[in-house]
This record gives sequence, structure tokens and C-alpha cells, in this order.
Amino acid sequence: MSTHEAVGVALLGAGTVGTGVAQTLSGKADELTRYAGRPLRLSGVLVRDTARKRPGFPPDVHLTNDPTTLTGAADVDIVVEVMGGEQPALGCIEAALRSGKHVVTANKQVMALHGPELLALAAERGVTLAFEASVGGGIPIIGPLVRDLAGNRVTAVNAVINGTTNYMLTRMAKQGASYEDALAEAQRNGYAEPDPSDDVDGRDAAYKLAILSTLAFRCTVREPDVYREGIRDLDAADFEYAHGLGYVIKLLAASRLQDGAVQARVYPAFLHEQYPLAKVDGVYNAVELEGDLVGWAMFQGPGAGAAPTTSAVIGDVLSIVRASTSGGAVPAYPDVRERLPILPVAELETKYYLRLRAYDKPGVMAQITGVLGEMGVSLASIIQKEVPEDAGTPAEVVIITHKARESAVQEAVRKLEALSVVYGQPKLVRIEDGSA
Amino acid sequence: MSTHEAVGVALLGAGTVGTGVAQTLSGKADELTRYAGRPLRLSGVLVRDTARKRPGFPPDVHLTNDPTTLTGAADVDIVVEVMGGEQPALGCIEAALRSGKHVVTANKQVMALHGPELLALAAERGVTLAFEASVGGGIPIIGPLVRDLAGNRVTAVNAVINGTTNYMLTRMAKQGASYEDALAEAQRNGYAEPDPSDDVDGRDAAYKLAILSTLAFRCTVREPDVYREGIRDLDAADFEYAHGLGYVIKLLAASRLQDGAVQARVYPAFLHEQYPLAKVDGVYNAVELEGDLVGWAMFQGPGAGAAPTTSAVIGDVLSIVRASTSGGAVPAYPDVRERLPILPVAELETKYYLRLRAYDKPGVMAQITGVLGEMGVSLASIIQKEVPEDAGTPAEVVIITHKARESAVQEAVRKLEALSVVYGQPKLVRIEDGSA
Repeated sequence: MSTHEAVGVALLGAGTVGTGVAQTLSGKADELTRYAGRPLRLSGVLVRDTARKRPGFPPDVHLTNDPTTLTGAADVDIVVEVMGGEQPALGCIEAALRSGKHVVTANKQVMALHGPELLALAAERGVTLAFEASVGGGIPIIGPLVRDLAGNRVTAVNAVINGTTNYMLTRMAKQGASYEDALAEAQRNGYAEPDPSDDVDGRDAAYKLAILSTLAFRCTVREPDVYREGIRDLDAADFEYAHGLGYVIKLLAASRLQDGAVQARVYPAFLHEQYPLAKVDGVYNAVELEGDLVGWAMFQGPGAGAAPTTSAVIGDVLSIVRASTSGGAVPAYPDVRERLPILPVAELETKYYLRLRAYDKPGVMAQITGVLGEMGVSLASIIQKEVPEDAGTPAEVVIITHKARESAVQEAVRKLEALSVVYGQPKLVRIEDGSA
Repeated sequence: MSTHEAVGVALLGAGTVGTGVAQTLSGKADELTRYAGRPLRLSGVLVRDTARKRPGFPPDVHLTNDPTTLTGAADVDIVVEVMGGEQPALGCIEAALRSGKHVVTANKQVMALHGPELLALAAERGVTLAFEASVGGGIPIIGPLVRDLAGNRVTAVNAVINGTTNYMLTRMAKQGASYEDALAEAQRNGYAEPDPSDDVDGRDAAYKLAILSTLAFRCTVREPDVYREGIRDLDAADFEYAHGLGYVIKLLAASRLQDGAVQARVYPAFLHEQYPLAKVDGVYNAVELEGDLVGWAMFQGPGAGAAPTTSAVIGDVLSIVRASTSGGAVPAYPDVRERLPILPVAELETKYYLRLRAYDKPGVMAQITGVLGEMGVSLASIIQKEVPEDAGTPAEVVIITHKARESAVQEAVRKLEALSVVYGQPKLVRIEDGSA
């Protein structure tokens, strides 16, 4: 882009984030101009329905339902993609990059599935693809990772990175809400979609973890590489046991680089209540990084919402303009096209919480502990609630293991399930407290 | 700098940070080259004594005690200043910038006293002055503030930003250590200097707060603009009362932009135990920002140490190289030369903890509360420890006020001190819990 004229910004999407970006561009025009060194001009907005009134937008704004009129337009320098979803967003981003436009996107799905190729395309065309808003809403995390912490070998990412489930889990832990009630409340408050699957099944967190892991480890990690379990199976009893044992249940998104391979997982986990991530409540998000130089650093803030996401988008736009104004440089993103082996979850080693129901017969404990011992899983503690001796109803047994291999624990669970004294399916939650 | 050769890095200072930087440049040469796009070469090191053995440095490294041979050398592109202290560091930084060198500094004192002029000089010469390492050790905070959060109007900075005092306060709170014991222990562990004044009197925190406030509010805030009280007067009883009332004592560094004026202060404060900054223990640091778009964000990590500081220095070096390689751009720093009014601490409004000793005579409470009432300071609670009726020793009285104006509270303290029933000097600690 040339260095004296206004910077043309095209907006793809006019939802809450798009509206926030448009309002910020007009409402803060003076200070953005001062900061960027040049005025930012909204060149046009891609919408589904061009006839609909858009109260958040300037009255004279150019509305179109044809993305090509924006992604290829001569007066557009930066394309801001805030449509969400894989397509048509991906096609628009590619078209914009091919036309030599810088792109700022909030799209976690596109970046988690196609990020490395898009970054390579951007580098080839000499433009920037920036995506701070795709992870952690307004929390600066991608910038710090690729710039300020670039001297580190990052070896681990641990995050609470889905606001919807964190809100629900906080309600379940603190108010004893059931899963259903917590979900209904999240939906009433606008924190959960009518179809909450992407959030409660952990897919949203897996998208974000894939993006973070790609940048942290400088290799391609895609969403399908992330082992994933959601929170649907947790119930009030799990929260009670967790609390009693000094743990908090969070939907953990965690990845590690070890011996040249990547291990990435999203699942509900028991975190020790003193562990910093355990203290992140409600719709807040937090990302923790381990690097060889910095040791440990954590970033916290609002994980979603129109204003925080706008904050990230505008930050990216300003960085691009400032870099371009002073000579055409692009912000630093590492080359992430290398593919490293992905370790299966079976190779994980951690502690486990195992809850099962067993008929209170003589020798039942011997059978249960025998199965675990046979699989080499050693026990840290067993809790058995007392039941009336004549009840004939199964008693609840909770087992906490020492560190064990996932494959062995899974095999043990299958064997426990097959025992005639065990009623129903044992429930397994991993315990990650950083200790050995 | 040209785009194919090695990047020449001169190191001013060979202490623990300088050694860490040199070791990282050689130990991670391959990955830094890959990331930067060009090799980084250590052109020379400024040391006091060129004859001394430097085991952390490459054997063939050029050592000199004349800074001009580095700051003006043709084969130096980036000058890394890790000497510390105001002079001769300031002179070296100026000389390097005037010679058209990029400068990366870890020097909080120089930046807190001369930052705006140095940034203007760098801009004038078309080079970058980067200083991520000057605040919060390895925690990315300056980068996020000037880049990722650049779209925000930042209105408040709250930080626990001095590792030495935070280590001491944590020991005093959790192990009941005295000030003297906590200091001795911090010194034994290398967390406090033999002369701990800069840390315990809050000057170190004030330097860092000045730098953060300058960037956050985009105006010049210097260290002398920061109101400052240290932690020397705290004793075990204050920690007991704080704990009993649900508070944690931290050395708070906080600033606000309100009605076009800046208010900045460093002092020990009672923080509600649930407040995120209250949970930052030991040598860790944390910085919390409030901005109109992001709402709230917090950054946590190791606030000092050779490796974390090296992390920040290398991050700045890599950002400069990547920006230069792709066309000579400079990272984004806002223009901060504007001077806004500085609000005196007398205009602060907060809650207060007041601890005093009074002779247990009839009417004493009426006198004390009368003084406070007269000054318009309303009371939230009073704690008086029971003393034997015939003891004649003064009883301890602790008063928690509602929100009040600092000037009124200070005047009330002077009047209380003048009362014949009050023994010694009342102690005042501010309570900052974010509530009204």
C-alpha cells in the first residue's frame, strides 16, 4: 500500500464483531489515524442482505453481497474477515491474499484447518495474514508468542480457552448446577449457542489449541490432531469429589512438544485448586506457556465477545498499517509448514480419577484393585461411600491413581466394566496438577 | 541494515543478563537464524575489565571497555544495552541511536527517566529502540500494549511488579516472617541486593510503572511523577489483620488516566484475596490493564532473572531483524511526548486501613471517631483488641474506612496523632479492592 493515502479496509461480515470493528473505525477515527500515521477508511462491507438496515454502520457505507468486489478492489488494502465458519470464509481469505491484500481474520476454524497453507500463501505474496482474534478473544497471545517470546523453545501450552464451558463448569462447581441447568443458563445469557456442540464437545477449544500449538512449536498442528473429549458426561458428584480432593474441574486444552513429537488434547481435567488455570472462572480465558528462557508465563482476559474481539482485530490492523507505512515489512510469523509426529493420547502419562459403581459384596475391592494392579496402574487413594448393607444397590467407588499410562488405564477400565460386580460404565477424568 | 549479511549485535554489559544473551546467541544460533532469516553475530562486548576471563562467552569474542568502538562500529546493527543504571548507559544508548543503530535495552531507569526523548530520537533516526525487558522480566507486556492492544483507550494499569518485595511480602504473609527476616532471606536467595533500597522503597516499581503508564496512556509519565511509599513499615500485625479481613498485602503499582490527567502510585495496599493480583505470589509479577475494548487483561510471569530477561531481549532483537529484513520497518511505538497533568496523591479516593494505639480511657473511641467524622471520613468497621483493664498500656485499634479522599484521611491522621489518648504514630495502608 502507498504511504500517504487512507488505508482501505474491507469488512467481510456484519455480525456483532463486524459491527464492533466498523463502530471503532468511525468512533475512534482520530486516534486510530494518529496511531497508524494514516486514516483508515471502511471501503465496504460484505453482508448477506444488502437491503437490510445496518444501524451500527455509517449511513453511506458500501454494502455488497459479492465478496470479489471487495477482495479484489483497488481501494482495499486490508480485508478483515469476521464471518466465521470454514466456507465461504476460506475462499474469501485466499482470494484476498492472492490479490495482494493483507488479511486480518478472527476465524479459528479456518486457521485451525488451513493456517499453515494460508500463512505460506501470504508470505509468497508479500502480505500479512494476522489472526490474533482467532484465539482468546481480546487477550494478546499470538503476538506475544510469535514476537516477544520468539527466542524461546516453547515446550508446553496449557489453556482454559472456551468461555462457554468455563462459564458452565464454574456454575456447576460453585452453585452445584447440573449440566443441563448450566447449559440453559449459558444460553439465556448469550454465552452458548442454541446448538452448543462445538463448545461442549471441545471442538472450539481444539481449534484454538491447534492454532496455538502450531505457533508455539513452529510446526503444523491441525484440529483433527487434537484428542478431544467434551463436558457432557460430568455430573454434580464429580464436582463434589473434585472439591473434596482439592481440585477444580476445567476443560483443559493442553499440548506439549516432547522428543520431536506433538501431543495435544482437550478434555475435562481435575486441576489442583492452587494451579493458576484452576482460578480462571466464568467466561474468562487463560493461556499458560512454558519456554526454556521465560520459564512460565500466563495471559488472561475475556475469551470472547464483540468488544474484546474488536480489540484484537484493530490491533492487527494497526500493526499492519504501521509496518507498511514504514516500508512494507510484514509482522513476524514463523514458518510452520513442518509436520511432526502426533503422539496418540494412548501414550499420555498422567494421574486419573475413576468413578464407578460396584455391588458391595465380599472381595469386590480385591477384584477392582486387582484389575488395576494387573495393568500396572498404582493407586493413590480410594474413596468408598458407605451404603446400607442390605440395600443391594451398587456403592460408589472413587479411585485416584498415581501417574499411569493412558493405554493401561483405558484397558483397565474396559476390564473393570466387564466385571460382574461393576455396575454400568466407569467414568474417567484425567488429573493434571503438574506434579510427578 | 542490509538484507543478506549477518546481523551484528553489540552487547553493552557482561553481567548475568549479558551472559545469558551471549549464550543464547551462540547456543541457539541455528534456530535464531531460521527465525530471523539471517544469522546473528556477536560483534563485541563492552566490559569493565577486558583482561578478566568470561567463561559464558565465545573464546574469540571481541571485548572492549570503550563503548564508542561498538556504538559507532560499521559491523554493528543492533546495540543491546544490559548494563543497568542511568549513566553511562544513557550516553551509550544515545550514541548508538545517533549512529543509526537499533537499540534493545533492559534498562528501566533510563526508560523511566528519559524514554520519551529516546523514542523520539530513534524515530528521527529511523531506527528502533525496544525495551520489553525493562518491565516485568520475561513477561510480554510492552509488545502487547503497543501492538495487540493498540486499538484500546487504556484507562488503568494495576501491577505487582517488583519481585523482591513480592517475595518478601509472601513470606511475611504465609510464614509470619518479620520484615527483617524476610529481607535477609531474600538476600540469601539472591532476590534482594545488599542495599535493597530501590526495591523496598518502591523505586524499582515506580520506574516500571512510569514506563507502562507512558505507553498505556500515550503521554510522558516519569518516575518522579509516581507517588511512592515502600514496605519498610509493615509488620506482622498488619498481615494478621489483613488476613482476618480477607485481604492480602501487596506492593501495588497502579495508575489511571482520568479526565485527561494521570494518577500514578506505588505503595503497599490491601487487595481483596479474590482479586487476581492478590494471588500473585513469590518472585512472580503480574500486570493488569483496563481498556475500553478488551475490558480487562492480565499478564503474569517471572519478573526478573537472567533467562526471562534474555527472553525479552532476544524477542526484541528478532522483531527488529524480521522487520528490517522485510524492508526497514520499525515496530510500532506510539508518540508519547505529550505531557498531561499529574494528579497528586491527595486527590486519590480509596478505602483505608488505619492502625493506631490508644489508651483505654472512657470516651477515647468517641474522640477517635469524632476526628474522622469531622474530616468526612466514614467508617466501615472498627476492631479493638481487649486489653487488661488495669494495664495502662495502649490498646490497638484498627479502623477500616469507606471510600474517602486521601487529603481528608491524611488530615485526620495528623489530628489523631495530636490526640493525647493516641500513642505513637497511626499507620495507614490503602485498601484497593475495586469496589465502590
